[in-house]
Amino acid sequence: MAENIAALQAMLGELADAVVVAFRGATTALLDGRARVADRVIAGDPELDDLRARIEALATETITIFAPVGPDMRILVSAIQSAHELERMGDLAQHVAEIAQRRAPEPAVPSVAHDLFRDFSAQAIAMVAKSAQVLRTRNVVLALELEQDDDRVDALHRELFALMFGEQWTCGIPAAVDVTLLARFYERIADHAVALSERTVYEVTGRHPESLQL
Amino acid sequence: MAENIAALQAMLGELADAVVVAFRGATTALLDGRARVADRVIAGDPELDDLRARIEALATETITIFAPVGPDMRILVSAIQSAHELERMGDLAQHVAEIAQRRAPEPAVPSVAHDLFRDFSAQAIAMVAKSAQVLRTRNVVLALELEQDDDRVDALHRELFALMFGEQWTCGIPAAVDVTLLARFYERIADHAVALSERTVYEVTGRHPESLQL
Repeated sequence: MAENIAALQAMLGELADAVVVAFRGATTALLDGRARVADRVIAGDPELDDLRARIEALATETITIFAPVGPDMRILVSAIQSAHELERMGDLAQHVAEIAQRRAPEPAVPSVAHDLFRDFSAQAIAMVAKSAQVLRTRNVVLALELEQDDDRVDALHRELFALMFGEQWTCGIPAAVDVTLLARFYERIADHAVALSERTVYEVTGRHPESLQL
Repeated sequence: MAENIAALQAMLGELADAVVVAFRGATTALLDGRARVADRVIAGDPELDDLRARIEALATETITIFAPVGPDMRILVSAIQSAHELERMGDLAQHVAEIAQRRAPEPAVPSVAHDLFRDFSAQAIAMVAKSAQVLRTRNVVLALELEQDDDRVDALHRELFALMFGEQWTCGIPAAVDVTLLARFYERIADHAVALSERTVYEVTGRHPESLQL
């Protein structure tokens, strides 16, 4: 069973890395108006779905064969949930790529919001990369850092809204609608990254993160 | 084990009903600008989280004790996923209530979009109610209907965007941002309702819905 669990953790790490790659691609497509990069992200999504299905199948099979108890059971059930969460993050990357595709060759984010959106998206993607590392290394200290990282993403998210509501915003309603949705997608992946890491903390320590804050 | 599975299905039905109630409340708060109704939805969210945790615990315990195989295993793993999905839908109801609360006693949806938004939200909530019924009755025909229902929700969603992009929209950026987010939240619960029902179809028939379209 230890072998299967190791394989599952490697597959989850692989899926998380693929999500990071998808989000980096979608973000480039978005900020630089590059349609072919967006196409590539969209075309890659079925691979992520497939990897999720393989993780789910292996975890279920392992539970069925070995009927584990305690911590191993916790790890296997949580692998299924994490795979589902990562697939969902992949869907969000696809949504970003779709908006990029629709506006290309213009960048979907208007120039007044470009720098702020670049920081915001970079922070969110860095969180996903960190949660991939947590999935691989099961490093609890790193996992707990993600809560603070999320506060920074939330602050940049609020700045984006302040920008849209201010006088500098002369880009009209359609651009505001795009930026609202895009901001929501990046905020959601940051939330998912936190949830993934919270689950790892619980698996490793048997305790919920709020009882462990450094 | 059959007893535990029956208990889990009842608990999932109860959780789904609670999500419907939360969404109805949040929608009233939103369209009528009623802050106290919004408060009640927000105050009720921990109960949903608690029910989700109890479903997860019972499903995990059942797997550990009975080490089921085949269809029973599928039902138990899928109960954990459905509970997670329903909790997420409850979070979305809370987000709606938060926007309602922020704008009350004004309705957060401007009057020009009021009727369209009422239809749109009613359709999405009806889908959640139908998926609750599917969870209870395991009625595959009803489950398959949800795909068509979702097409109607998507059509109303597109109408809302067309309205915001048109000349009738004189409500400015902040209202457009609110409506964009709100529309996204209702669209998401409709998606979740479809996913819940797809899972039931797979449990009952061992086949994915796309291979069964009526």
